[in-house]
Amino acid sequence: MKTGPLKVALAGLGTVGGGTVRLLHAHADLIARRAGRPVVLTAVAALERPSDLPLDGVPFFADARLMATQADYDVLVELIGGAGGIALDIVNTALDRGKSVVTANKAMIAHHGVALAAKAEAAGVSIGIEASVGGGIPVIKTLREGLAGNRVTSVMGILNGTCNYILTTMREQGRDFADVLAEAQRLGYAEADPAFDIDGTDTAHKLAILASLAFQTPVDLAAISIEGIRHISALDIQYADELGYRIKLLGVAGRSETGVDTRVYPAMVPLSFPLAHVDGVFNAVVTEGDFVGRTVLEGRGAGAHPTASAVAADLVDLARGRVVPTFGVPVECLAAAPSSGAGRRSAFYIRLMVRDEPGVFAGIAGALSAEQVSMEKILQRGRAPAGVVPVVMTVHETDEAAMARALERIAALAAVAEPPRLIRIETI
Amino acid sequence: MKTGPLKVALAGLGTVGGGTVRLLHAHADLIARRAGRPVVLTAVAALERPSDLPLDGVPFFADARLMATQADYDVLVELIGGAGGIALDIVNTALDRGKSVVTANKAMIAHHGVALAAKAEAAGVSIGIEASVGGGIPVIKTLREGLAGNRVTSVMGILNGTCNYILTTMREQGRDFADVLAEAQRLGYAEADPAFDIDGTDTAHKLAILASLAFQTPVDLAAISIEGIRHISALDIQYADELGYRIKLLGVAGRSETGVDTRVYPAMVPLSFPLAHVDGVFNAVVTEGDFVGRTVLEGRGAGAHPTASAVAADLVDLARGRVVPTFGVPVECLAAAPSSGAGRRSAFYIRLMVRDEPGVFAGIAGALSAEQVSMEKILQRGRAPAGVVPVVMTVHETDEAAMARALERIAALAAVAEPPRLIRIETI
Repeated sequence: MKTGPLKVALAGLGTVGGGTVRLLHAHADLIARRAGRPVVLTAVAALERPSDLPLDGVPFFADARLMATQADYDVLVELIGGAGGIALDIVNTALDRGKSVVTANKAMIAHHGVALAAKAEAAGVSIGIEASVGGGIPVIKTLREGLAGNRVTSVMGILNGTCNYILTTMREQGRDFADVLAEAQRLGYAEADPAFDIDGTDTAHKLAILASLAFQTPVDLAAISIEGIRHISALDIQYADELGYRIKLLGVAGRSETGVDTRVYPAMVPLSFPLAHVDGVFNAVVTEGDFVGRTVLEGRGAGAHPTASAVAADLVDLARGRVVPTFGVPVECLAAAPSSGAGRRSAFYIRLMVRDEPGVFAGIAGALSAEQVSMEKILQRGRAPAGVVPVVMTVHETDEAAMARALERIAALAAVAEPPRLIRIETI
Repeated sequence: MKTGPLKVALAGLGTVGGGTVRLLHAHADLIARRAGRPVVLTAVAALERPSDLPLDGVPFFADARLMATQADYDVLVELIGGAGGIALDIVNTALDRGKSVVTANKAMIAHHGVALAAKAEAAGVSIGIEASVGGGIPVIKTLREGLAGNRVTSVMGILNGTCNYILTTMREQGRDFADVLAEAQRLGYAEADPAFDIDGTDTAHKLAILASLAFQTPVDLAAISIEGIRHISALDIQYADELGYRIKLLGVAGRSETGVDTRVYPAMVPLSFPLAHVDGVFNAVVTEGDFVGRTVLEGRGAGAHPTASAVAADLVDLARGRVVPTFGVPVECLAAAPSSGAGRRSAFYIRLMVRDEPGVFAGIAGALSAEQVSMEKILQRGRAPAGVVPVVMTVHETDEAAMARALERIAALAAVAEPPRLIRIETI
């Protein structure tokens, strides 16, 4: 094992970067004991030198590219973000120099992870990506090392704290999506442009990484079907409660005989399922392995301190000389699997807004029956003669294509006043 | 990194040993990819050579000591069990020969872990203990590596599947302890001599190991105060339900300014707390770290396959040359902390069986008030003039010594017909 200090150059002093500087400063002794040698900052880069961080004597670079090229370091910690641009440039520079990398950048890893991993392997160095998924929860380490003896058949999680905060607040306070989103933006829990979170892109990036680790397949962002949470209404959340479910934005990856299926969608989760109770900014990941069975990991999925905790874990591993392929196996062992999305089946929740007139139910029942979709429950609250009322149904597990066809028939009924709302029900 | 196969000698072909042989056989390719080289059995030892395991061509020893001394191996996997005896002998032999060890033996690690770790460090080899706590849940790896950047302030868990199965079944079926225990013994979920599980010893062994990892203190089994679940009645479980709690046997370790406190006891856990929903043979561990916040890990805490999964994870780490001190830091860095058990505070549930006569409540209230214990709720169901009825109370967080004194006063009241039952309420 190496004995000198592990020299760390850190790019990006925003929320996570600042948290990481604070952690390395506050726990220098503890980390040195766990790492077997000191872990020291030898350079930092940011647009401006911050005055409120313990950075005395640490060389500062206003240009991260310059730092990556010139500074003296063993590991580059990339906390700038973005799939390409400066982040990708400096990571490539570090790898070209034969230096290891630690990053929280899920977009970059989802888009360029395999190429970067190949370059790191060729150079005999590591890319630590613990901070890229699940904040401080050691989900990368668990999939890569803790469950290494298992054939993993599925990995599913609540991976975006912003969405989970919005959905939790909508339920707890009976408020509507737009209202809670605006508040989350004011509080800094959601970005000014929230699309990246609420349309499911961020969850897809993280799911792509988890699926690669779980199934030893190349990261395949393009294969993921993605649905966000914009269309979830307070009314749907209220009905979910009544039916014994919670609505959660899930990333779901499954491997079957025919291939790998990766999807992001909001789903109704039964209260008996571990993910139902994961609220607010917490994230959680449920993994099924053939020997270990079900494993659940839960914790804070974002934020300065939890993410800094994940960065520190990767640095301690590097300091100890624990070199692991980025995705658990060498890039040459990552074997592409066909997408097995065809023939998907699911149970569903359907909410219709219908004109309260005779014959409505017969029309709906006929549409379902024509596509052999089997109804489980139907709920109607209140009457509004000549007005519009919600009608809610759940249907048993059915072919998704048949459900889509039935929904088209229903949408075409004269009494159906608005486009139907469809939400999957997780039956696991 | 080494390139030849990792040679494994496995002692003990019972439940976990058999599961491990099956896993290494079924997943030889997957493990070779993850480990970077094959992991192969080069010797096994058991009392009798089993005919139902894939062990073709693997040298068999009827004497584990002989195998430890003579066989050709890089790692000895010890799955015999027991704090001393053969298990300890062969582990010492392996370390003396400069070989690494993987073990599921929590009793041995709780009693001799520090001495063994010191010997392993001196020899430059590893002792993998993932399988010793929490079955297949990677709780050791998480505390040792995943949360390495944190000062951990508490670790708490459901660590014994037998107790959790008994308590879950008592609740679900409204049955009494002795009845469910007898059934668990028939089903093989509890040992013929169940004391080790139900009196909390097994939980204490695991807690001692977790506390050492979390707090970087030497394993200190003697410091743990232990209370088992024999005295939990169906009536208490029913009242817990009514009050919004689940009764769980917990191992709880906390670090404060004054020292470390480690305890095993059954407690009422609020439904909002993650551990409340961990049922049956599942285990779970809740950790609080200063940067990461709360992390929860849940999964199968025992059984052939989950435990084999943990053994395999340790073997993959060894094959990759990932050498880590047994307790996360070198033995010389383990610093004893004083026991901070004095001044413990808790909320409590108290069940009394009292003669249904005037003045009873005044006596009870007087006893509590004399010790400054503050009552929260009181429940009485049904009347039985001149008979005996249960009276249930909860009290606010109070000094445990004061609670004990108040209980002595209550027990001495003429109307109190049986010794009072006291169960802690977790307020976290």
